[in-house]
Amino acid sequence: MNNSKNHRISKRATWAARQQIGYLMKQAVDHPDCLSLAAGLVDHATLPVEIAETQMQEILESSERGQLALQYGTTEGALSFRETVIKYLAALEQSTVRELGLTAKRCIITTGSQQLLDLVSQAIFDPGDICLVTSPTYFVYLSTLEGCGADVRSINCDDQGIIPDALQAELELIERAGELHRVKLLYLVSYFDNPRGITMPLARRLEILEILQQWSARQYIYLLEDAAYRELWYDAPPPVSMYALDESKQRVILAQTFSKSLSPGLRTGFGIIPDALIKPVSDLKSIHDFGSPHLTQTCINGLIESGDYAVHVAKLRESYQKKSEAIWQALQENILPQPGMIAFKPTGGLYVWLQIDSSYPETRFNKEFFDECVNAQKIMYVPGELFFADKTHPAASHTMRLSYGVQSKENLHEGIDRLSKGLNVFRE
Amino acid sequence: MNNSKNHRISKRATWAARQQIGYLMKQAVDHPDCLSLAAGLVDHATLPVEIAETQMQEILESSERGQLALQYGTTEGALSFRETVIKYLAALEQSTVRELGLTAKRCIITTGSQQLLDLVSQAIFDPGDICLVTSPTYFVYLSTLEGCGADVRSINCDDQGIIPDALQAELELIERAGELHRVKLLYLVSYFDNPRGITMPLARRLEILEILQQWSARQYIYLLEDAAYRELWYDAPPPVSMYALDESKQRVILAQTFSKSLSPGLRTGFGIIPDALIKPVSDLKSIHDFGSPHLTQTCINGLIESGDYAVHVAKLRESYQKKSEAIWQALQENILPQPGMIAFKPTGGLYVWLQIDSSYPETRFNKEFFDECVNAQKIMYVPGELFFADKTHPAASHTMRLSYGVQSKENLHEGIDRLSKGLNVFRE
Repeated sequence: MNNSKNHRISKRATWAARQQIGYLMKQAVDHPDCLSLAAGLVDHATLPVEIAETQMQEILESSERGQLALQYGTTEGALSFRETVIKYLAALEQSTVRELGLTAKRCIITTGSQQLLDLVSQAIFDPGDICLVTSPTYFVYLSTLEGCGADVRSINCDDQGIIPDALQAELELIERAGELHRVKLLYLVSYFDNPRGITMPLARRLEILEILQQWSARQYIYLLEDAAYRELWYDAPPPVSMYALDESKQRVILAQTFSKSLSPGLRTGFGIIPDALIKPVSDLKSIHDFGSPHLTQTCINGLIESGDYAVHVAKLRESYQKKSEAIWQALQENILPQPGMIAFKPTGGLYVWLQIDSSYPETRFNKEFFDECVNAQKIMYVPGELFFADKTHPAASHTMRLSYGVQSKENLHEGIDRLSKGLNVFRE
Repeated sequence: MNNSKNHRISKRATWAARQQIGYLMKQAVDHPDCLSLAAGLVDHATLPVEIAETQMQEILESSERGQLALQYGTTEGALSFRETVIKYLAALEQSTVRELGLTAKRCIITTGSQQLLDLVSQAIFDPGDICLVTSPTYFVYLSTLEGCGADVRSINCDDQGIIPDALQAELELIERAGELHRVKLLYLVSYFDNPRGITMPLARRLEILEILQQWSARQYIYLLEDAAYRELWYDAPPPVSMYALDESKQRVILAQTFSKSLSPGLRTGFGIIPDALIKPVSDLKSIHDFGSPHLTQTCINGLIESGDYAVHVAKLRESYQKKSEAIWQALQENILPQPGMIAFKPTGGLYVWLQIDSSYPETRFNKEFFDECVNAQKIMYVPGELFFADKTHPAASHTMRLSYGVQSKENLHEGIDRLSKGLNVFRE
């Protein structure tokens, strides 16, 4: 007899079950009356309804174009779209396709950048292989790693992103333990990161690449650069990607998406893949789904080529910048004047990371402060602990991520006001 | 030093690399001058350009509906769409949602049914677990199984599908080898199958379910029922699904898609999942991509609700039936009169499976007959061997799949004429 439910599912499914996003979503469902600064959604009001309508009409009013878009594409994505994407990327990097070593072959279109993160991880990790991540990091990627059975090691960050000395020290530690051959990848969010909103400056990018380069004489370590938020800058464009900075052009897997800059409902992302990973990632994509929807690719291709995309992103930046100013003003008025409260003013993206004084109770799920916020003050945040592979990390207990992309300016003020009231309950 | 490319990819990626679809596609690319009866694409001319345009306009002309469609959906698919899907499925089964035990919770929307096949397989199989398949079977699923490291065992078929005695005998063999605890799943295509075009009659469906039911006292075995072609019937609707016939409603995973009946460019399929697999499949889907594109789901939902979908499928049936009659007539005139030539007249779907007399050379890739066809006669077919897990199977050497979905009636006649000429070269 082998009828127990647990025996009917694979190890991979058991690992995948550990993910915490379900818990976060349950909180949202259980507290529908809360003003949410938790959800990482994009701003509903800025979704590109009109330009999408125009574009769909353009595609579907012609039988020829319409039939092509409604037919199967290819596993790696439509060639014409991939050619558009590499040109668009070269423009973002203020360079050329040629200088950047970009070819359509190295570009793969995925169902959001999440699929790219998953495909790359499945292509690289056997159970027990080591992935280096930042502390804190994008929590959904921690689930992806768990789904692969990867062994996650966390590296501390400062206000410029991952700390070079900490990376170096961790690699030395791993080497001394005889495990260097299992280190396959470093994952980081290089622009306006999730959860802290930090962008790595140019010098820091180069330092990290240099360290990986040096270690690669002994063990080749890929860098998975998640650039999901790179286009959402406010005052000035951020530095070029680590992909662009890497001379070999074979170290960095660059993951980007049109979910944040255009529409998550089109679920289209892409990756730039080192030569050695093109076939493995494509083989896995073929098993996954033979390719992402051709119609949505055709639509985004048209929007980039018509220039509608660029106009849209410019509007989006302005809108998110205004929201960021609203939440920042509210934080400055209500919370940051108190001792021990730390946050960085966002220069792009969708998040503020708030560290509260250690005299307050912990910010974790289902502890008294979280309960006070969701039950009494009706305000929801994401506890910092969610972003740490090691829940006992010192920064996991008194931090929170505040998302300002969805709410109106008025609600952002109201939300920070409620959070402040929640804090005041515990003020000594 | 560990710099070899092979050491940089995972076991799963190595397994995934064995897939043969790449080889098939390379043949198509290498022989662009061939008339192709190989590609399993849907008919370009019948793609639903006009109704898709109307529907997209309906969604996107309203800010409210448009924003909703362009925002994130949920991992399992939009609730409203899943509710539409289960009602549509109940109608196909000539039953009710309640009688069929269908709930939106048990329905998951995927990027084509391929993603459902992959998710279910990843949720069920650890490396070395056994999957039972038919011989021949849908070759892409063989790659999916290889990607999971599953151990594939093939069961022979007759003109009603998988042979009950052969299934029983294989399970007894496995039990005697002490491997019964590793048998997790039986996969089959129950309607107008790929590659043979065979539909399992009602009695055969019940026999197979009964065998699985009996063995489950010792080992619970799921049935993955691939019903991709079920709506493409010609003269009369086919029997109800094995899902509908299973009393427990917990044995069968039913996989369907809108790729064949509507548009592959919308890449939308769905599965009905036993209770014990809902969470594992959803957890894996969350890691894969957090959900398939919301816009395409919204579009198909609208097409089903407006009745446009039903009208489209009726037209499609008529179109494919005419094509099937054309290829069948050509086969009857040119090939089937020769001794030892066997084919079944299609009653639905997109394929004819042709078995040629054993006095002819083998039909395999890159053998003299295949070369004669693609190089001299300029006609491309899919060699039967592609559909067998065991390439030494007796039926793998003198069979081929002919797809008639894409070509015009004139081209179908011309194609069979060329194939006949190819055969005549080797006629004794």
